Amino acid sequence: MIEEILTLIENKEFVKLRNTLSEMNAPDIALMYDELPEEHVLRLFRLLPKELAADTFVEMDPDTQEHLLKCFSDKELRDVLDEMYVDDTVDIIEEMPANVVKRILRQSDPQTRSEINKILNYPKDSAGSIMTIEYVNLKADMTVAEAFDRIRATGVDKETIYTCYVTDKNRHLLGFTTVKDLLLCNNCKEIGEMMETNVIFVDTFEDKENVANLFRKYDLLAMPVVDKETRLVGIITFDDVIDVIQEEHTEDIEKMAAILPSEKPYLKTSVWDTFKNRIPWLLLLMISSTFTGKIISSFESMLSVCVVLTAFIPMLMGTGGNSGGQASVTIIRSLSLNDISMKDIFKILRKEFFTALLCGTALAVVNFGKMMLIDYGTILSSGQDPVIISTIVSLTLLVTVICAKLVGGGLPILVKRLGFDPAVTASPFVTTIVDAISLLIYFEIAMSFLPI
Amino acid sequence: MIEEILTLIENKEFVKLRNTLSEMNAPDIALMYDELPEEHVLRLFRLLPKELAADTFVEMDPDTQEHLLKCFSDKELRDVLDEMYVDDTVDIIEEMPANVVKRILRQSDPQTRSEINKILNYPKDSAGSIMTIEYVNLKADMTVAEAFDRIRATGVDKETIYTCYVTDKNRHLLGFTTVKDLLLCNNCKEIGEMMETNVIFVDTFEDKENVANLFRKYDLLAMPVVDKETRLVGIITFDDVIDVIQEEHTEDIEKMAAILPSEKPYLKTSVWDTFKNRIPWLLLLMISSTFTGKIISSFESMLSVCVVLTAFIPMLMGTGGNSGGQASVTIIRSLSLNDISMKDIFKILRKEFFTALLCGTALAVVNFGKMMLIDYGTILSSGQDPVIISTIVSLTLLVTVICAKLVGGGLPILVKRLGFDPAVTASPFVTTIVDAISLLIYFEIAMSFLPI
Repeated sequence: MIEEILTLIENKEFVKLRNTLSEMNAPDIALMYDELPEEHVLRLFRLLPKELAADTFVEMDPDTQEHLLKCFSDKELRDVLDEMYVDDTVDIIEEMPANVVKRILRQSDPQTRSEINKILNYPKDSAGSIMTIEYVNLKADMTVAEAFDRIRATGVDKETIYTCYVTDKNRHLLGFTTVKDLLLCNNCKEIGEMMETNVIFVDTFEDKENVANLFRKYDLLAMPVVDKETRLVGIITFDDVIDVIQEEHTEDIEKMAAILPSEKPYLKTSVWDTFKNRIPWLLLLMISSTFTGKIISSFESMLSVCVVLTAFIPMLMGTGGNSGGQASVTIIRSLSLNDISMKDIFKILRKEFFTALLCGTALAVVNFGKMMLIDYGTILSSGQDPVIISTIVSLTLLVTVICAKLVGGGLPILVKRLGFDPAVTASPFVTTIVDAISLLIYFEIAMSFLPI
Repeated sequence: MIEEILTLIENKEFVKLRNTLSEMNAPDIALMYDELPEEHVLRLFRLLPKELAADTFVEMDPDTQEHLLKCFSDKELRDVLDEMYVDDTVDIIEEMPANVVKRILRQSDPQTRSEINKILNYPKDSAGSIMTIEYVNLKADMTVAEAFDRIRATGVDKETIYTCYVTDKNRHLLGFTTVKDLLLCNNCKEIGEMMETNVIFVDTFEDKENVANLFRKYDLLAMPVVDKETRLVGIITFDDVIDVIQEEHTEDIEKMAAILPSEKPYLKTSVWDTFKNRIPWLLLLMISSTFTGKIISSFESMLSVCVVLTAFIPMLMGTGGNSGGQASVTIIRSLSLNDISMKDIFKILRKEFFTALLCGTALAVVNFGKMMLIDYGTILSSGQDPVIISTIVSLTLLVTVICAKLVGGGLPILVKRLGFDPAVTASPFVTTIVDAISLLIYFEIAMSFLPI
């Protein structure tokens, strides 16, 4: 595709180029422009029809956007800004350097400018920061026919026309209606009579993760956002919510893997930024594993008598870490889906205990068999009794798995209770705790079985 | 709320109850019914207006649904089925025991029954399995006014009316139009002239994860599904896609934590099922850590001379595992967001190498400092030179982090290339490999520094 476009540019077949581009979808054109050499982008962009141009611009890479913004004439910039929805403009502004932002604001009309500034001031993860102000506003005393007139007159610039909001003189939210209901309704009916008054709405400061949960629960297409006096200030549409869900998910996964959340895609993040996102937890977890080292040191005399015990430390710690990680990740995910809450803590611990009993027993049995079959010779040649050593290791395994599952199941709830994000208590964090526990159990059990 | 409802039942205030319920949203009523004692559910359900009843039924817990389905009269069952969209009926059927399914199919009208059977036959994660057949179908030679008549006549039963699909006599997909475009258009215009012909569609067998990615990319409200002859057979709507995205996330997270994906919420899964989902990977990872054990055993003579080295094994393995996990999880997530692909492998390895160099150096320096400050006495009293031991451990740390990041960065790509889901190569899997590597590095470095 890119080669075809480059050939058309070379042969100066601009009419054909324009027709090809007009047939394409904005996200695909944007992807292509991001790959093209910079000197062609502006010329190609000018070939696009106004609306498609704005849609494409929104989908582009921040680098390409910045390049274009710097090349645009004032008129071109105004045209693109006029076609764009305010929430998209805000998204772009957040990625641009100060001088470009200033130019964007200078070229926006005064009302839009003040709206942009308002949205920019909402906290980063709030409903206000992702809303748009382009919605269809109806009055309760309009008839259905008048409502359609209003939609026809103003709809072209609105992000969605399918859900229309009804407000009073002071912009207080009274209800909503959908184009489906309007279409299936008598034209003379008044909006006030037919509107739905049971509105699901959020405050501008609501966390956007909760907004996403409400969309999912109620299958919404759009949701109104109100200020402290329940005056309608904007709406959030489903397409922004899909993006929120994806971002939140990436953030969760990063936190679970002990990485600080990054804003940019992997290949766009510099090595230095990747380093900065990864090193804090690595350092913290390394330092905290000092305790495990201390535990081993304090049992050094025992280990030097019975070195063969050392060989099973990685397996015990690994299995403990994996068991705890399984539990904690399950609980973290259930918490973020609102499947469980604080009050379920005893149900959770009970369930984890019995699951751990089953898992631990199965692992212990298999391990005992494996050690008697495979490690028998090694243990014997080190001067120890294979049955005793296998029993010590298998018993440790059982107790470790139980402790690991209880820690993994309980910790996320506890951390949430304390007001932190439970996602940080996933595998790496739980592993560090479980490592120490499993070693203590191991050495205690070994001490009681062996004549040391 | 539940208490209020129970009081109303006790006082037999059914009119008030009906009014209260009618004001509520289906998902909230469903949540409440799930909590109520079973004997009240049927009576309360009968109080709901037809449409709200069906919407509520869809949102209920499978257990409550099954209870109701068993209590319904044939007429009641038919009423609920008539109001429900086919895709929701299919979802419910998939959760019900055979005798209930038979009854549902017997009470459905013949056409719906054959549609249900068709959808049930599509593979589990395919576009066909999540589509619905209720869409608005227009013809190219209709005028806009005729299109509106058709929407008004048939729209009430359609899952969405906002995107309408244009087909020819043989149901081949020609294009689509939106109610927004129809509203903003002259009533006399023909659909064939104004429709959009550049349609994003999928085949019935397309993976639903790809469907979700297309929705996200193109901000779609609905997407047509076609058969092998590009005949329109159904549509997928954005609300189902939000559910798909959430399910896929849960599945990804479970795979990353070495759990087999579960279908049900945590508290609804039995201990036995939880056990079955968790034990396979635990066993596999435990068995594979036999190698780490073997490595330690083979260096046993060295360890018995210098037991102090044992104390740093957990820290080295832990840091290696965390470093590798960070890299693999980042790559897995980027792969599933289509941010990176196979061809970026060298860019990725290069980036991971330099990040690892930075992380490894930082960790090594901090660790050296920590060991000289905290572990100095312990090492000295074991008869070893603290500087040499600290150097060995820090050097191992650096090399381990580099290996871990390269394995973590490369493995997901390799596994995807081989046709498997890269999510399984997250922390637990990478950790097991990195454990073995880090021990080998540790002992090799120790051998070259110490006179053993």
